[in-house]
Amino acid sequence: MEGYWLFLALLVSALLVGFLSVIFTLVWVLHYREGLGWDGTQLEFNWHPVLLVTGLVFIQGIAIIVYRLPWTWKCSKLLMKSIHAGLNAVAAILAIIALVAVFDNHNVSGIPNMYSLHSWVGLTAVICYLLQLVSGFVVFLLPWAPLSLRAFLMPIHVYSGLLIFGTVIATVLMGVTEKLIFGLRAPASYSTFPPEGVFANSLGLLILVFGALIFWIVTRPQWKRPKEPNSTLLQPNGGTAEGARGSMAANSGYNMDKSDSELNNEVAARKRNFVLDEAGQRSTM
Amino acid sequence: MEGYWLFLALLVSALLVGFLSVIFTLVWVLHYREGLGWDGTQLEFNWHPVLLVTGLVFIQGIAIIVYRLPWTWKCSKLLMKSIHAGLNAVAAILAIIALVAVFDNHNVSGIPNMYSLHSWVGLTAVICYLLQLVSGFVVFLLPWAPLSLRAFLMPIHVYSGLLIFGTVIATVLMGVTEKLIFGLRAPASYSTFPPEGVFANSLGLLILVFGALIFWIVTRPQWKRPKEPNSTLLQPNGGTAEGARGSMAANSGYNMDKSDSELNNEVAARKRNFVLDEAGQRSTM
Repeated sequence: MEGYWLFLALLVSALLVGFLSVIFTLVWVLHYREGLGWDGTQLEFNWHPVLLVTGLVFIQGIAIIVYRLPWTWKCSKLLMKSIHAGLNAVAAILAIIALVAVFDNHNVSGIPNMYSLHSWVGLTAVICYLLQLVSGFVVFLLPWAPLSLRAFLMPIHVYSGLLIFGTVIATVLMGVTEKLIFGLRAPASYSTFPPEGVFANSLGLLILVFGALIFWIVTRPQWKRPKEPNSTLLQPNGGTAEGARGSMAANSGYNMDKSDSELNNEVAARKRNFVLDEAGQRSTM
Repeated sequence: MEGYWLFLALLVSALLVGFLSVIFTLVWVLHYREGLGWDGTQLEFNWHPVLLVTGLVFIQGIAIIVYRLPWTWKCSKLLMKSIHAGLNAVAAILAIIALVAVFDNHNVSGIPNMYSLHSWVGLTAVICYLLQLVSGFVVFLLPWAPLSLRAFLMPIHVYSGLLIFGTVIATVLMGVTEKLIFGLRAPASYSTFPPEGVFANSLGLLILVFGALIFWIVTRPQWKRPKEPNSTLLQPNGGTAEGARGSMAANSGYNMDKSDSELNNEVAARKRNFVLDEAGQRSTM
Protein backbone atom coordinates (compact mmCIF):
# COMPACT_ATOMS: atom_id res chain seq x y z
CA MET A 1 0.00 0.00 0.00
CA GLU A 2 1.30 3.39 -1.02
CA GLY A 3 1.66 5.85 1.85
CA TYR A 4 1.10 3.10 4.42
CA TRP A 5 2.49 5.03 7.39
CA LEU A 6 0.44 8.13 6.59
CA PHE A 7 -2.63 5.92 6.30
CA LEU A 8 -1.81 4.33 9.65
CA ALA A 9 -1.26 7.72 11.32
CA LEU A 10 -4.59 9.02 10.00
CA LEU A 11 -6.42 5.83 10.92
CA VAL A 12 -5.07 5.89 14.48
CA SER A 13 -5.96 9.61 14.72
CA ALA A 14 -9.48 8.92 13.46
CA LEU A 15 -9.96 6.06 15.95
CA LEU A 16 -8.61 8.21 18.76
CA VAL A 17 -10.68 11.28 17.92
CA GLY A 18 -13.80 9.16 17.33
CA PHE A 19 -13.32 7.30 20.62
CA LEU A 20 -12.67 10.60 22.41
CA SER A 21 -15.94 11.98 20.97
CA VAL A 22 -17.85 9.08 22.53
CA ILE A 23 -16.03 9.58 25.86
CA PHE A 24 -16.71 13.34 25.76
CA THR A 25 -20.41 12.68 25.15
CA LEU A 26 -20.50 10.28 28.10
CA VAL A 27 -18.68 12.79 30.34
CA TRP A 28 -21.12 15.48 29.20
CA VAL A 29 -24.23 13.53 30.21
CA LEU A 30 -22.73 11.83 33.29
CA HIS A 31 -20.72 14.72 34.75
CA TYR A 32 -22.38 17.92 33.49
CA ARG A 33 -25.93 16.58 33.07
CA GLU A 34 -28.17 14.26 35.04
CA GLY A 35 -26.72 10.91 33.96
CA LEU A 36 -28.46 8.04 32.20
CA GLY A 37 -31.73 6.22 32.84
CA TRP A 38 -34.95 5.10 31.12
CA ASP A 39 -37.80 6.88 32.90
CA GLY A 40 -38.97 9.54 30.45
CA THR A 41 -36.94 12.26 32.19
CA GLN A 42 -33.73 13.99 31.13
CA LEU A 43 -31.92 10.76 32.07
CA GLU A 44 -33.67 9.05 29.19
CA PHE A 45 -33.08 12.01 26.87
CA ASN A 46 -29.36 11.70 27.59
CA TRP A 47 -29.24 8.37 25.76
CA HIS A 48 -30.02 10.38 22.60
CA PRO A 49 -26.59 12.05 22.22
CA VAL A 50 -24.69 9.05 23.63
CA LEU A 51 -26.21 6.52 21.22
CA LEU A 52 -26.07 8.80 18.19
CA VAL A 53 -22.44 9.83 18.64
CA THR A 54 -21.53 6.18 19.27
CA GLY A 55 -23.58 4.77 16.40
CA LEU A 56 -24.20 7.25 13.60
CA VAL A 57 -20.91 9.10 14.08
CA PHE A 58 -18.23 6.70 15.38
CA ILE A 59 -19.45 3.30 14.15
CA GLN A 60 -20.72 4.68 10.82
CA GLY A 61 -17.34 6.40 10.32
CA ILE A 62 -15.50 3.12 10.85
CA ALA A 63 -17.97 1.29 8.58
CA ILE A 64 -17.21 3.81 5.82
CA ILE A 65 -13.46 3.14 5.84
CA VAL A 66 -13.50 -0.57 6.65
CA TYR A 67 -12.72 -1.60 3.04
CA ARG A 68 -9.58 0.54 3.14
CA LEU A 69 -7.82 -1.31 5.96
CA PRO A 70 -4.96 -3.00 4.08
CA TRP A 71 -4.93 -5.92 6.53
CA THR A 72 -8.39 -6.88 5.29
CA TRP A 73 -7.45 -6.99 1.63
CA LYS A 74 -6.73 -10.71 1.96
CA CYS A 75 -10.22 -11.28 3.36
CA SER A 76 -13.03 -12.16 0.99
CA LYS A 77 -15.20 -9.42 -0.40
CA LEU A 78 -18.28 -11.08 1.08
CA LEU A 79 -16.75 -10.98 4.57
CA MET A 80 -15.89 -7.29 4.20
CA LYS A 81 -19.36 -6.46 2.89
CA SER A 82 -20.83 -8.31 5.87
CA ILE A 83 -18.67 -6.31 8.29
CA HIS A 84 -19.61 -3.05 6.53
CA ALA A 85 -23.31 -3.93 6.65
CA GLY A 86 -23.05 -5.30 10.20
CA LEU A 87 -21.46 -2.13 11.59
CA ASN A 88 -24.08 0.00 9.85
CA ALA A 89 -26.85 -2.26 11.18
CA VAL A 90 -25.55 -1.81 14.75
CA ALA A 91 -25.43 1.97 14.20
CA ALA A 92 -28.99 1.90 12.83
CA ILE A 93 -30.29 0.02 15.88
CA LEU A 94 -28.57 2.50 18.22
CA ALA A 95 -30.06 5.38 16.19
CA ILE A 96 -33.58 3.96 16.51
CA ILE A 97 -33.19 3.56 20.30
CA ALA A 98 -31.82 7.13 20.41
CA LEU A 99 -34.94 8.40 18.62
CA VAL A 100 -37.24 6.45 20.95
CA ALA A 101 -35.40 8.06 23.90
CA VAL A 102 -35.99 11.61 22.71
CA PHE A 103 -39.64 11.07 21.66
CA ASP A 104 -40.33 9.35 25.00
CA ASN A 105 -38.73 12.19 26.93
CA HIS A 106 -40.59 14.84 24.92
CA ASN A 107 -43.93 13.09 25.35
CA VAL A 108 -43.46 12.63 29.11
CA SER A 109 -42.24 16.23 29.55
CA GLY A 110 -44.87 17.78 27.27
CA ILE A 111 -42.26 19.11 24.82
CA PRO A 112 -43.53 19.17 21.21
CA ASN A 113 -41.77 16.84 18.76
CA MET A 114 -40.32 17.64 15.36
CA TYR A 115 -40.43 21.43 15.47
CA SER A 116 -36.68 22.12 15.15
CA LEU A 117 -34.39 22.11 12.13
CA HIS A 118 -32.27 19.61 14.09
CA SER A 119 -35.22 17.20 14.21
CA TRP A 120 -36.21 17.73 10.56
CA VAL A 121 -32.70 17.11 9.26
CA GLY A 122 -31.95 14.39 11.80
CA LEU A 123 -35.07 12.32 11.13
CA THR A 124 -34.54 12.66 7.37
CA ALA A 125 -30.95 11.46 7.80
CA VAL A 126 -32.01 8.43 9.88
CA ILE A 127 -34.75 7.47 7.38
CA CYS A 128 -32.25 7.77 4.50
CA TYR A 129 -29.74 5.74 6.54
CA LEU A 130 -32.27 2.92 7.00
CA LEU A 131 -33.22 2.99 3.31
CA GLN A 132 -29.51 2.93 2.42
CA LEU A 133 -28.96 -0.04 4.75
CA VAL A 134 -31.87 -2.06 3.36
CA SER A 135 -31.11 -1.25 -0.29
CA GLY A 136 -27.41 -1.94 0.27
CA PHE A 137 -28.22 -5.30 1.86
CA VAL A 138 -30.58 -6.33 -0.94
CA VAL A 139 -28.45 -5.11 -3.85
CA PHE A 140 -24.86 -5.64 -2.70
CA LEU A 141 -24.93 -8.38 -0.06
CA LEU A 142 -27.64 -10.75 -1.26
CA PRO A 143 -26.44 -12.60 -4.34
CA TRP A 144 -29.44 -12.01 -6.62
CA ALA A 145 -29.02 -8.46 -7.93
CA PRO A 146 -27.71 -8.33 -11.50
CA LEU A 147 -24.17 -6.95 -11.76
CA SER A 148 -25.36 -4.15 -14.01
CA LEU A 149 -27.74 -2.98 -11.26
CA ARG A 150 -24.89 -3.11 -8.73
CA ALA A 151 -22.66 -1.11 -11.02
CA PHE A 152 -25.40 1.45 -11.61
CA LEU A 153 -26.28 1.82 -7.93
CA MET A 154 -22.77 1.79 -6.45
CA PRO A 155 -21.87 5.45 -7.11
CA ILE A 156 -25.26 6.44 -5.67
CA HIS A 157 -24.67 4.19 -2.64
CA VAL A 158 -21.25 5.74 -1.97
CA TYR A 159 -22.47 9.29 -2.52
CA SER A 160 -25.54 8.78 -0.32
CA GLY A 161 -23.44 7.16 2.39
CA LEU A 162 -21.04 10.09 2.57
CA LEU A 163 -23.85 12.64 2.29
CA ILE A 164 -25.72 10.96 5.15
CA PHE A 165 -22.52 10.84 7.24
CA GLY A 166 -21.88 14.56 6.63
CA THR A 167 -25.52 15.38 7.36
CA VAL A 168 -25.36 13.39 10.60
CA ILE A 169 -22.37 15.46 11.71
CA ALA A 170 -24.19 18.71 10.87
CA THR A 171 -27.20 17.41 12.82
CA VAL A 172 -25.05 16.58 15.85
CA LEU A 173 -23.58 20.11 15.79
CA MET A 174 -27.13 21.53 15.73
CA GLY A 175 -28.07 19.21 18.58
CA VAL A 176 -25.12 20.34 20.71
CA THR A 177 -26.08 23.96 20.00
CA GLU A 178 -29.73 23.36 20.98
CA LYS A 179 -28.86 21.48 24.15
CA LEU A 180 -26.41 24.16 25.33
CA ILE A 181 -28.85 27.03 24.70
CA PHE A 182 -31.78 25.21 26.36
CA GLY A 183 -29.78 23.50 29.10
CA LEU A 184 -27.53 26.31 30.32
CA ARG A 185 -29.48 28.96 32.20
CA ALA A 186 -28.48 32.29 33.76
CA PRO A 187 -26.25 33.05 35.58
CA ALA A 188 -24.27 30.24 33.90
CA SER A 189 -25.89 30.69 30.48
CA TYR A 190 -24.10 29.62 27.29
CA SER A 191 -22.79 33.14 26.59
CA THR A 192 -20.87 33.32 29.89
CA PHE A 193 -18.42 30.61 28.77
CA PRO A 194 -19.38 28.07 31.47
CA PRO A 195 -17.19 24.92 31.62
CA GLU A 196 -20.03 22.80 30.20
CA GLY A 197 -20.36 25.12 27.18
CA VAL A 198 -16.64 25.06 26.43
CA PHE A 199 -16.57 21.29 26.95
CA ALA A 200 -19.50 20.57 24.63
CA ASN A 201 -18.14 23.00 22.02
CA SER A 202 -14.92 20.97 22.12
CA LEU A 203 -16.98 17.82 21.60
CA GLY A 204 -18.45 19.48 18.50
CA LEU A 205 -14.97 20.22 17.18
CA LEU A 206 -13.81 16.65 17.87
CA ILE A 207 -16.74 15.26 15.87
CA LEU A 208 -15.94 17.64 13.01
CA VAL A 209 -12.28 16.55 13.01
CA PHE A 210 -13.37 12.89 13.07
CA GLY A 211 -15.55 13.53 10.01
CA ALA A 212 -12.70 15.33 8.24
CA LEU A 213 -10.31 12.39 8.86
CA ILE A 214 -12.84 9.83 7.60
CA PHE A 215 -13.48 11.93 4.47
CA TRP A 216 -9.75 12.21 3.74
CA ILE A 217 -9.15 8.47 4.22
CA VAL A 218 -12.13 7.44 2.09
CA THR A 219 -11.40 9.77 -0.84
CA ARG A 220 -7.72 8.85 -1.48
CA PRO A 221 -7.64 6.71 -4.63
CA GLN A 222 -4.34 5.08 -3.64
CA TRP A 223 -5.90 3.61 -0.50
CA LYS A 224 -8.69 1.76 -2.23
CA ARG A 225 -8.97 -1.99 -1.75
CA PRO A 226 -7.33 -3.56 -4.81
CA LYS A 227 -9.56 -5.09 -7.43
CA GLU A 228 -10.16 -8.83 -6.95
CA PRO A 229 -8.01 -11.01 -9.24
CA ASN A 230 -11.05 -13.10 -10.22
CA SER A 231 -13.30 -10.20 -11.13
CA THR A 232 -16.10 -11.04 -13.48
CA LEU A 233 -15.54 -9.31 -16.80
CA LEU A 234 -18.70 -8.34 -18.55
CA GLN A 235 -20.27 -6.09 -21.08
CA PRO A 236 -18.65 -5.06 -24.37
CA ASN A 237 -16.90 -1.72 -24.86
CA GLY A 238 -19.30 1.16 -25.12
CA GLY A 239 -21.40 0.26 -22.12
CA THR A 240 -22.54 3.24 -20.18
CA ALA A 241 -23.00 1.99 -16.63
CA GLU A 242 -21.81 4.84 -14.47
CA GLY A 243 -20.55 2.47 -11.81
CA ALA A 244 -18.21 0.85 -14.29
CA ARG A 245 -16.75 4.19 -15.27
CA GLY A 246 -16.31 5.11 -11.64
CA SER A 247 -14.73 1.74 -11.12
CA MET A 248 -12.22 2.34 -13.88
CA ALA A 249 -11.43 5.78 -12.61
CA ALA A 250 -10.80 4.38 -9.19
CA ASN A 251 -8.65 1.54 -10.39
CA SER A 252 -6.16 3.63 -12.30
CA GLY A 253 -4.58 5.12 -9.22
CA TYR A 254 -3.89 1.62 -8.02
CA ASN A 255 -2.77 0.23 -11.33
CA MET A 256 -0.05 2.80 -11.67
CA ASP A 257 1.97 0.89 -9.10
CA LYS A 258 2.05 -2.11 -11.42
CA SER A 259 4.57 -3.14 -13.99
CA ASP A 260 4.32 -2.23 -17.66
CA SER A 261 3.22 -5.68 -18.70
CA GLU A 262 0.48 -5.73 -16.12
CA LEU A 263 -0.63 -2.31 -17.29
CA ASN A 264 -0.66 -3.47 -20.90
CA ASN A 265 -2.74 -6.49 -20.02
CA GLU A 266 -5.15 -4.40 -18.07
CA VAL A 267 -5.49 -1.87 -20.84
CA ALA A 268 -6.26 -4.64 -23.27
CA ALA A 269 -8.86 -5.92 -20.87
CA ARG A 270 -10.28 -2.44 -20.50
CA LYS A 271 -10.71 -2.09 -24.22
CA ARG A 272 -12.75 -5.28 -24.25
CA ASN A 273 -14.62 -5.12 -21.02
CA PHE A 274 -15.87 -3.15 -18.10
CA VAL A 275 -15.20 -4.58 -14.71
CA LEU A 276 -18.54 -4.69 -12.97
CA ASP A 277 -18.07 -7.17 -10.21
CA GLU A 278 -15.85 -4.83 -8.25
CA ALA A 279 -18.50 -2.16 -7.97
CA GLY A 280 -18.64 -3.19 -4.31
CA GLN A 281 -16.07 -0.66 -3.20
CA ARG A 282 -14.93 0.92 -6.45
CA SER A 283 -17.02 3.91 -7.04
CA THR A 284 -16.45 7.45 -8.10
CA MET A 285 -15.35 8.82 -4.74
CA MET B 1 -20.28 15.30 -22.48
CA GLU B 2 -21.74 12.07 -21.19
CA GLY B 3 -25.07 12.48 -19.43
CA TYR B 4 -25.41 16.08 -20.62
CA TRP B 5 -29.12 16.39 -19.94
CA LEU B 6 -28.81 14.96 -16.43
CA PHE B 7 -25.97 17.39 -15.80
CA LEU B 8 -28.09 20.26 -17.10
CA ALA B 9 -31.07 19.24 -14.96
CA LEU B 10 -28.91 19.04 -11.82
CA LEU B 11 -27.16 22.31 -12.62
CA VAL B 12 -30.46 24.14 -13.13
CA SER B 13 -31.78 22.56 -9.90
CA ALA B 14 -28.68 23.66 -8.01
CA LEU B 15 -28.93 27.22 -9.34
CA LEU B 16 -32.62 27.34 -8.52
CA VAL B 17 -32.26 25.91 -5.02
CA GLY B 18 -29.22 28.11 -4.31
CA PHE B 19 -30.99 31.23 -5.57
CA LEU B 20 -34.09 30.29 -3.56
CA SER B 21 -31.89 29.96 -0.45
CA VAL B 22 -30.69 33.54 -0.90
CA ILE B 23 -34.28 34.75 -1.48
CA PHE B 24 -35.51 32.84 1.60
CA THR B 25 -32.75 34.43 3.70
CA LEU B 26 -33.76 37.89 2.45
CA VAL B 27 -37.44 37.20 3.13
CA TRP B 28 -36.51 35.96 6.61
CA VAL B 29 -34.69 39.15 7.61
CA LEU B 30 -36.96 41.59 5.69
CA HIS B 31 -40.37 40.04 6.41
CA TYR B 32 -39.98 38.08 9.66
CA ARG B 33 -37.16 40.14 11.23
CA GLU B 34 -36.32 43.82 11.45
CA GLY B 35 -34.85 44.33 7.98
CA LEU B 36 -31.38 45.52 7.04
CA GLY B 37 -29.27 48.48 8.20
CA TRP B 38 -25.82 49.33 9.50
CA ASP B 39 -26.30 50.82 12.97
CA GLY B 40 -25.10 48.13 15.36
CA THR B 41 -28.66 46.87 16.01
CA GLN B 42 -30.41 43.74 14.78
CA LEU B 43 -30.63 45.43 11.38
CA GLU B 44 -26.85 45.18 11.11
CA PHE B 45 -26.84 41.63 12.48
CA ASN B 46 -29.24 40.65 9.68
CA TRP B 47 -26.51 41.23 7.09
CA HIS B 48 -24.73 38.26 8.69
CA PRO B 49 -27.05 35.51 7.35
CA VAL B 50 -27.77 37.35 4.08
CA LEU B 51 -24.10 37.81 3.14
CA LEU B 52 -23.02 34.35 4.28
CA VAL B 53 -25.76 32.45 2.45
CA THR B 54 -25.09 34.57 -0.65
CA GLY B 55 -21.31 34.30 -0.46
CA LEU B 56 -20.07 31.23 1.37
CA VAL B 57 -23.01 29.04 0.35
CA PHE B 58 -24.33 30.12 -3.07
CA ILE B 59 -21.29 31.76 -4.69
CA GLN B 60 -18.85 29.23 -3.21
CA GLY B 61 -21.07 26.42 -4.49
CA ILE B 62 -20.99 27.84 -8.02
CA ALA B 63 -17.23 28.40 -7.77
CA ILE B 64 -16.78 24.73 -6.89
CA ILE B 65 -18.53 23.46 -10.02
CA VAL B 66 -17.44 26.16 -12.46
CA TYR B 67 -14.83 23.92 -14.14
CA ARG B 68 -17.55 21.37 -14.90
CA LEU B 69 -19.71 23.59 -17.11
CA PRO B 70 -19.15 22.00 -20.53
CA TRP B 71 -19.64 25.35 -22.30
CA THR B 72 -16.45 26.59 -20.62
CA TRP B 73 -14.30 23.70 -21.81
CA LYS B 74 -13.29 25.74 -24.85
CA CYS B 75 -12.13 28.58 -22.58
CA SER B 76 -8.53 28.70 -21.45
CA LYS B 77 -7.58 27.12 -18.16
CA LEU B 78 -6.24 30.45 -16.94
CA LEU B 79 -9.59 32.12 -17.56
CA MET B 80 -11.42 29.38 -15.67
CA LYS B 81 -8.97 29.52 -12.77
CA SER B 82 -9.49 33.29 -12.65
CA ILE B 83 -13.27 32.87 -12.54
CA HIS B 84 -12.94 30.19 -9.82
CA ALA B 85 -10.63 32.43 -7.77
CA GLY B 86 -12.71 35.55 -8.51
CA LEU B 87 -15.96 33.99 -7.30
CA ASN B 88 -14.24 32.72 -4.15
CA ALA B 89 -12.70 36.17 -3.57
CA VAL B 90 -16.14 37.80 -3.79
CA ALA B 91 -17.49 35.20 -1.33
CA ALA B 92 -14.54 35.89 1.01
CA ILE B 93 -15.20 39.65 0.98
CA LEU B 94 -18.89 39.07 1.73
CA ALA B 95 -17.91 36.70 4.56
CA ILE B 96 -15.61 39.30 6.12
CA ILE B 97 -18.35 41.96 5.99
CA ALA B 98 -20.75 39.39 7.49
CA LEU B 99 -18.34 38.81 10.39
CA VAL B 100 -17.90 42.56 10.95
CA ALA B 101 -21.71 42.86 11.07
CA VAL B 102 -22.12 40.28 13.82
CA PHE B 103 -19.15 41.47 15.93
CA ASP B 104 -20.40 45.08 15.61
CA ASN B 105 -23.89 44.06 16.64
CA HIS B 106 -22.64 42.01 19.58
CA ASN B 107 -20.35 44.77 20.80
CA VAL B 108 -23.09 47.43 20.58
CA SER B 109 -25.67 45.15 22.24
CA GLY B 110 -23.30 43.84 24.93
CA ILE B 111 -23.56 40.23 23.71
CA PRO B 112 -20.31 38.26 24.25
CA ASN B 113 -18.48 37.13 21.13
CA MET B 114 -17.20 33.67 20.26
CA TYR B 115 -18.91 31.63 22.95
CA SER B 116 -21.01 29.35 20.73
CA LEU B 117 -20.08 26.25 18.74
CA HIS B 118 -21.53 28.10 15.71
CA SER B 119 -18.95 30.86 16.18
CA TRP B 120 -16.05 28.47 16.82
CA VAL B 121 -16.74 26.37 13.76
CA GLY B 122 -17.76 29.35 11.63
CA LEU B 123 -14.66 31.45 12.35
CA THR B 124 -12.42 28.41 11.78
CA ALA B 125 -14.14 27.81 8.44
CA VAL B 126 -13.71 31.44 7.35
CA ILE B 127 -10.01 31.48 8.34
CA CYS B 128 -9.45 28.21 6.45
CA TYR B 129 -11.36 29.66 3.48
CA LEU B 130 -9.08 32.72 3.40
CA LEU B 131 -5.94 30.55 3.70
CA GLN B 132 -7.29 28.34 0.91
CA LEU B 133 -7.96 31.39 -1.26
CA VAL B 134 -4.48 32.88 -0.73
CA SER B 135 -2.64 29.57 -1.12
CA GLY B 136 -4.74 28.70 -4.18
CA PHE B 137 -3.95 32.07 -5.74
CA VAL B 138 -0.21 31.78 -5.09
CA VAL B 139 0.16 28.14 -6.10
CA PHE B 140 -2.36 27.65 -8.91
CA LEU B 141 -3.01 31.07 -10.44
CA LEU B 142 0.36 32.80 -10.27
CA PRO B 143 2.74 31.20 -12.77
CA TRP B 144 5.71 30.61 -10.47
CA ALA B 145 4.86 27.49 -8.46
CA PRO B 146 6.62 24.36 -9.74
CA LEU B 147 4.27 21.85 -11.33
CA SER B 148 5.31 19.20 -8.83
CA LEU B 149 4.12 21.47 -5.99
CA ARG B 150 0.82 22.04 -7.82
CA ALA B 151 0.36 18.32 -8.31
CA PHE B 152 1.14 17.67 -4.65
CA LEU B 153 -1.18 20.39 -3.33
CA MET B 154 -4.13 19.89 -5.71
CA PRO B 155 -5.76 16.93 -3.89
CA ILE B 156 -5.38 18.85 -0.62
CA HIS B 157 -6.87 21.98 -2.26
CA VAL B 158 -9.89 20.04 -3.55
CA TYR B 159 -10.40 18.16 -0.29
CA SER B 160 -10.09 21.34 1.81
CA GLY B 161 -12.44 23.20 -0.50
CA LEU B 162 -15.17 20.59 -0.18
CA LEU B 163 -14.57 20.18 3.55
CA ILE B 164 -14.87 23.95 4.07
CA PHE B 165 -18.03 24.03 1.93
CA GLY B 166 -19.59 21.21 3.97
CA THR B 167 -18.51 22.85 7.23
CA VAL B 168 -20.03 26.16 6.10
CA ILE B 169 -23.36 24.42 5.52
CA ALA B 170 -23.20 22.79 8.97
CA THR B 171 -22.40 26.22 10.45
CA VAL B 172 -25.36 27.83 8.68
CA LEU B 173 -27.67 25.12 10.06
CA MET B 174 -26.33 25.84 13.57
CA GLY B 175 -26.82 29.57 12.95
CA VAL B 176 -30.45 29.09 11.87
CA THR B 177 -31.02 26.94 14.98
CA GLU B 178 -29.48 29.59 17.28
CA LYS B 179 -31.39 32.45 15.71
CA LEU B 180 -34.74 30.66 15.94
CA ILE B 181 -34.23 29.67 19.60
CA PHE B 182 -33.03 33.15 20.61
CA GLY B 183 -35.31 35.14 18.32
CA LEU B 184 -38.64 33.38 18.80
CA ARG B 185 -40.08 34.00 22.24
CA ALA B 186 -43.25 32.75 24.00
CA PRO B 187 -46.09 32.59 23.16
CA ALA B 188 -44.71 32.16 19.60
CA SER B 189 -41.60 30.27 20.66
CA TYR B 190 -39.82 27.88 18.29
CA SER B 191 -41.57 24.80 19.71
CA THR B 192 -45.06 26.13 18.84
CA PHE B 193 -44.38 25.82 15.08
CA PRO B 194 -44.68 29.56 14.32
CA PRO B 195 -44.57 30.49 10.59
CA GLU B 196 -41.07 31.98 11.00
CA GLY B 197 -39.76 28.72 12.49
CA VAL B 198 -41.23 26.58 9.72
CA PHE B 199 -39.97 29.07 7.11
CA ALA B 200 -36.41 29.18 8.45
CA ASN B 201 -36.36 25.37 8.86
CA SER B 202 -37.28 25.17 5.16
CA LEU B 203 -34.39 27.53 4.41
CA GLY B 204 -32.09 25.10 6.25
CA LEU B 205 -33.38 22.20 4.14
CA LEU B 206 -32.92 24.21 0.92
CA ILE B 207 -29.29 24.92 1.82
CA LEU B 208 -28.73 21.23 2.57
CA VAL B 209 -30.23 20.22 -0.79
CA PHE B 210 -28.07 22.83 -2.53
CA GLY B 211 -24.98 21.33 -0.89
CA ALA B 212 -26.05 17.81 -1.87
CA LEU B 213 -26.49 18.86 -5.54
CA ILE B 214 -23.09 20.58 -5.64
CA PHE B 215 -21.44 17.49 -4.09
CA TRP B 216 -23.05 15.19 -6.65
CA ILE B 217 -22.07 17.39 -9.60
CA VAL B 218 -18.48 17.82 -8.42
CA THR B 219 -17.82 14.15 -7.68
CA ARG B 220 -18.95 12.61 -11.02
CA PRO B 221 -15.78 11.62 -12.92
CA GLN B 222 -17.57 11.77 -16.29
CA TRP B 223 -18.32 15.47 -15.83
CA LYS B 224 -14.74 16.59 -15.31
CA ARG B 225 -13.28 19.19 -17.64
CA PRO B 226 -11.29 17.24 -20.25
CA LYS B 227 -7.52 17.31 -20.01
CA GLU B 228 -5.90 20.07 -22.10
CA PRO B 229 -4.46 18.76 -25.40
CA ASN B 230 -1.20 20.65 -24.78
CA SER B 231 -0.67 19.34 -21.25
CA THR B 232 2.88 19.50 -20.07
CA LEU B 233 4.22 15.99 -19.71
CA LEU B 234 6.74 15.63 -16.98
CA GLN B 235 8.43 13.29 -14.61
CA PRO B 236 9.49 9.75 -15.53
CA ASN B 237 7.40 6.73 -14.64
CA GLY B 238 7.55 5.86 -10.98
CA GLY B 239 6.95 9.37 -9.70
CA THR B 240 4.91 9.39 -6.56
CA ALA B 241 3.20 12.76 -6.55
CA GLU B 242 -0.24 12.08 -5.18
CA GLY B 243 -1.81 14.71 -7.39
CA ALA B 244 -0.57 12.95 -10.47
CA ARG B 245 -2.11 9.71 -9.33
CA GLY B 246 -5.36 11.48 -8.58
CA SER B 247 -5.12 13.08 -11.99
CA MET B 248 -4.75 9.73 -13.67
CA ALA B 249 -7.60 8.23 -11.71
CA ALA B 250 -9.80 11.10 -12.72
CA ASN B 251 -8.84 10.98 -16.37
CA SER B 252 -9.71 7.34 -16.89
CA GLY B 253 -13.43 7.91 -16.64
CA TYR B 254 -13.13 10.46 -19.39
CA ASN B 255 -10.77 8.47 -21.56
CA MET B 256 -13.19 5.61 -21.80
CA ASP B 257 -15.24 7.68 -24.22
CA LYS B 258 -12.37 7.85 -26.65
CA SER B 259 -11.46 5.65 -29.56
CA ASP B 260 -9.07 2.75 -29.25
CA SER B 261 -6.25 4.55 -30.99
CA GLU B 262 -6.57 7.51 -28.68
CA LEU B 263 -6.61 5.16 -25.73
CA ASN B 264 -3.50 3.39 -27.00
CA ASN B 265 -1.71 6.70 -27.43
CA GLU B 266 -2.68 7.80 -23.99
CA VAL B 267 -1.63 4.55 -22.42
CA ALA B 268 1.75 4.90 -24.08
CA ALA B 269 1.99 8.40 -22.71
CA ARG B 270 1.00 7.17 -19.28
CA LYS B 271 3.73 4.59 -19.26
CA ARG B 272 6.25 7.34 -19.91
CA ASN B 273 4.84 10.24 -18.02
CA PHE B 274 2.51 11.57 -15.41
CA VAL B 275 0.38 14.47 -16.46
CA LEU B 276 1.02 17.16 -13.90
CA ASP B 277 -0.11 20.33 -15.57
CA GLU B 278 -3.74 19.34 -15.39
CA ALA B 279 -3.69 19.16 -11.62
CA GLY B 280 -5.77 22.34 -11.86
CA GLN B 281 -9.07 20.53 -11.83
CA ARG B 282 -8.03 16.88 -11.89
CA SER B 283 -7.80 15.71 -8.41
CA THR B 284 -8.94 12.70 -6.51
CA MET B 285 -12.50 13.77 -5.89
